[in-house]
Amino acid sequence: MDALSRLVSALRCLPGVGPKSAQRMAYHLLQHQRQRGLQLAACLQQAMETLGHCQRCNNYTEYDLCALCQNPARDPSVLCVVESPSDVAAIEQCAAFSGHYFVLMGKISPLDGMGPEDIGLPRLYDLITDNKVKEIILALSPSVEGQTTTHFICDMLRDNSVTISQLAHGIPSGGELEFLDGTTIGSALRNRALVNA
Amino acid sequence: MDALSRLVSALRCLPGVGPKSAQRMAYHLLQHQRQRGLQLAACLQQAMETLGHCQRCNNYTEYDLCALCQNPARDPSVLCVVESPSDVAAIEQCAAFSGHYFVLMGKISPLDGMGPEDIGLPRLYDLITDNKVKEIILALSPSVEGQTTTHFICDMLRDNSVTISQLAHGIPSGGELEFLDGTTIGSALRNRALVNA
Repeated sequence: MDALSRLVSALRCLPGVGPKSAQRMAYHLLQHQRQRGLQLAACLQQAMETLGHCQRCNNYTEYDLCALCQNPARDPSVLCVVESPSDVAAIEQCAAFSGHYFVLMGKISPLDGMGPEDIGLPRLYDLITDNKVKEIILALSPSVEGQTTTHFICDMLRDNSVTISQLAHGIPSGGELEFLDGTTIGSALRNRALVNA
Repeated sequence: MDALSRLVSALRCLPGVGPKSAQRMAYHLLQHQRQRGLQLAACLQQAMETLGHCQRCNNYTEYDLCALCQNPARDPSVLCVVESPSDVAAIEQCAAFSGHYFVLMGKISPLDGMGPEDIGLPRLYDLITDNKVKEIILALSPSVEGQTTTHFICDMLRDNSVTISQLAHGIPSGGELEFLDGTTIGSALRNRALVNA
């Protein structure tokens, strides 16, 4: 196998990249962007080798603590619990949260052999009892596993004075009623908010 | 900028990859495929550094001559002229051609400052006069630049006994008449073939 075929087949490890796109990417880099291709190779290698997990929140970082945990401007009394590092990026993008995060590495899922220890819940417990966390916001996906995890966390913190909230479930911004599923409309109805309050 | 942000921004050099996909790719590799990510980095670096052009046909190769030019089973009397290395891959895929190739690096386009020398036409001329090429097949795109290049090549080889043909223009396999443009249907009509010949 020559260098070109090896590159095409290696590019297929990227999500959503099939044989045609991989070929297109390889030819594009070779023809127009050799320098940026080399740069990508260096960034890839560095990221794969140096990125580990933040010792406090589990997010990806090259250091012991991630930039968010090190930032003194952020409020340590509110802790947002998410399922994966990409969820942190999504929440950061909305710029409406200035607390700290805790990244579970997955969800409780007995079928997949994922128990509370596998997703780091004992560490979450220690973090909450050791620190001055006043509220935890559960930002887990509304799936069966997400709900199981939510219940488990509530149960684990039963004897603790911390406030536990979860993201509101309802109609997404720009969503049209006629195209939304029944479950979403159902929770939007149950969680309806007073307009003239 | 940390290693993760650098990786996300470097991934955007790939065609069709915007900020969201780049982020998804980076997280996917970090979470599930660190080994394959490292492998991709190595393949990328090697391809960008070692792949040059075949001295005979201009296709990408790590060696002086590409695998197709070195293959003794291929017929050197037929030469297919294409615009880019990806066209070679596309024609090879149909397995209906067993001759040699010549890859122009582009098309004649005075507006973009691309003249006959820039796309290697003098080398094509030498190749045809020096060797035993009996037929050249022009597989250029049916654009204005492609047609200009076709005319130029025909003109350049006027005094030569070589046969010049070009790919048939007509209705693509699986194409439905009602969705095809007028130009395509027009050439399909002009180039109609006898059924009972």
